[in-house]
Amino acid sequence: MQRILAIDAGGTSTRAVVATLAGECLGVGLGAGGNPISSGVSGALQAVTAAAAGAVTQAADTGGPDGEFACVLVAMAGKSGGLPDVRITERLAAAGIRGPLELESDLLAMFCSGTPSPEGYALAAGTGSVAARVRGHGLERVAGGTGWLLGDDGSGFWIGRRVARAVVAALDGLGPSTALTALVLEQLGLAADDPAAGETVEGRPAVLMRLLTELYRLRPVHLSRFAPLAFRAAREQPADEVAGHILEAAASALVGMLDAVREPGLGGPLVLGGSVLGAGLLAPDSPLAGTLLADLRATRVVCAPDGAVGAAVLGLLHAGAAVDDRVFERLSASVADHRPR
Amino acid sequence: MQRILAIDAGGTSTRAVVATLAGECLGVGLGAGGNPISSGVSGALQAVTAAAAGAVTQAADTGGPDGEFACVLVAMAGKSGGLPDVRITERLAAAGIRGPLELESDLLAMFCSGTPSPEGYALAAGTGSVAARVRGHGLERVAGGTGWLLGDDGSGFWIGRRVARAVVAALDGLGPSTALTALVLEQLGLAADDPAAGETVEGRPAVLMRLLTELYRLRPVHLSRFAPLAFRAAREQPADEVAGHILEAAASALVGMLDAVREPGLGGPLVLGGSVLGAGLLAPDSPLAGTLLADLRATRVVCAPDGAVGAAVLGLLHAGAAVDDRVFERLSASVADHRPR
Repeated sequence: MQRILAIDAGGTSTRAVVATLAGECLGVGLGAGGNPISSGVSGALQAVTAAAAGAVTQAADTGGPDGEFACVLVAMAGKSGGLPDVRITERLAAAGIRGPLELESDLLAMFCSGTPSPEGYALAAGTGSVAARVRGHGLERVAGGTGWLLGDDGSGFWIGRRVARAVVAALDGLGPSTALTALVLEQLGLAADDPAAGETVEGRPAVLMRLLTELYRLRPVHLSRFAPLAFRAAREQPADEVAGHILEAAASALVGMLDAVREPGLGGPLVLGGSVLGAGLLAPDSPLAGTLLADLRATRVVCAPDGAVGAAVLGLLHAGAAVDDRVFERLSASVADHRPR
Repeated sequence: MQRILAIDAGGTSTRAVVATLAGECLGVGLGAGGNPISSGVSGALQAVTAAAAGAVTQAADTGGPDGEFACVLVAMAGKSGGLPDVRITERLAAAGIRGPLELESDLLAMFCSGTPSPEGYALAAGTGSVAARVRGHGLERVAGGTGWLLGDDGSGFWIGRRVARAVVAALDGLGPSTALTALVLEQLGLAADDPAAGETVEGRPAVLMRLLTELYRLRPVHLSRFAPLAFRAAREQPADEVAGHILEAAASALVGMLDAVREPGLGGPLVLGGSVLGAGLLAPDSPLAGTLLADLRATRVVCAPDGAVGAAVLGLLHAGAAVDDRVFERLSASVADHRPR
């Protein structure tokens, strides 16, 4: 019985799936962050191998004894993010896993997690943000995803940095006061009702100086931790205007990314992924999603939690299997059944 | 004959001045970057000591044999930037330099380099940006200066990052085309890559991927190196609109900082410092400077190249000397005479 092994290596966790060519998932394995840029080459190899071994072990329990696969597919940011193919093949072989290795983009895997359609649009907004037009199960045009310092507008980092800057500006007398101030100070253990809050140091509020010390201790990309506070402040009654403006600008930036990849003649579904979209910035039932659907002439909006199913779809295609709606539904349902609760 | 030693410790270089209580400069010394945050504690101590020793040696040639000073004043970002007083005193004593140590802000020293007035306004925009209201030769209110990640709007980093982001967005199809693209690619040695050549990698222009690799190799704060390109593109005929918008936003952010420290009842001069202001964003004869003068009710606009003279002014004041216009003019002229050409 021919099987494929598909691995979706993400920044914070890695998922592996063993499936038959008919789309029946036999095992799912998990690993730590598998992105070589954030986890290092050896950390990424370790995570990919651990997830693969987990899936293979679970699949062996359900009958398949063989470590030979019709395809071993690894989905990763930028396809391999600098991880050499031969290193992956060696590490998997050392774990008794063999088969032709194929690398694909994690963004394409996310798209394929949402739909068996070979064409459509993908929009991911987690710590980073990126949009793509997909045709023939390939990325035809990508926009965004250029990283925290130079792009990724509308991403979790982008929102979180704007939250931090808005609070710094408010305390510095350079921006309007905002409910975000109390939320950020609270999250950092610097309560706003601090008795020393009115104290000044070198011509500034003492609390601002303490806040700056705490914020500059973080790695810049970790400013994304403040993104949820924007959603919270915008939901409160009365809604915070500063938070509202940040989220409107984020949504508009994400729409701009989709607009850059849009092609009038191409339909298909729009697949959304990432924590920012999940937090409600662009929920499938939101007015903004409706506008996007109309603009893109997309058939529907789907949310994809990760690229596990899609990596398996791509593995099946590389192995020469057909992925129709029935195979896709079987794969989605059986992967869900095998995931740890 | 009583003398003072004043040291202006900056991020890229350090200047020391030995002067009589009548404001006659006897020696100037130079050192490397003396900011403990960017140069490290031991690098900063080394730079401060080297500059001080240079000034003392030059002063000894002109007659003063004594290493004892009525005041040893060190001007530094955030007063000491975490450099313990005792470490400075020890290192100077080891070089035969003694006297009561006083620490002051480098921003206040910059202000005092431009005027003997005890009150007025200061605006500095180099790699960072900060504004202050000065009263009684002290910083009464400061705004900005909160660092590259969280503030410093209108600074060289802020302009340079916007230049880099505008070029990335233009190549990514997310922003308007701009003359900045060719300038940035040329500066990074990527000029041979014609963006119109159409080569793509994973759904994007290949030149964009090469540009991102180069830009992420830089330390983020070094994006400030692209700030001069905005001034260049905005000066060309026809002027580049994207560059023009970046500079307008920068000027507006700096005006906002001054506005935050403004107090209707306080006049005095506005002292400008830093490379961005020097590059013409806010030249003393610009229309914007005229507006600022009117808004602030400032008596005039002065440019200060650094804080060397101002540190000496503060040293004289700490030593109990009066600094009137004549003393100030004598100090300014004699420091200029002693500076290396």
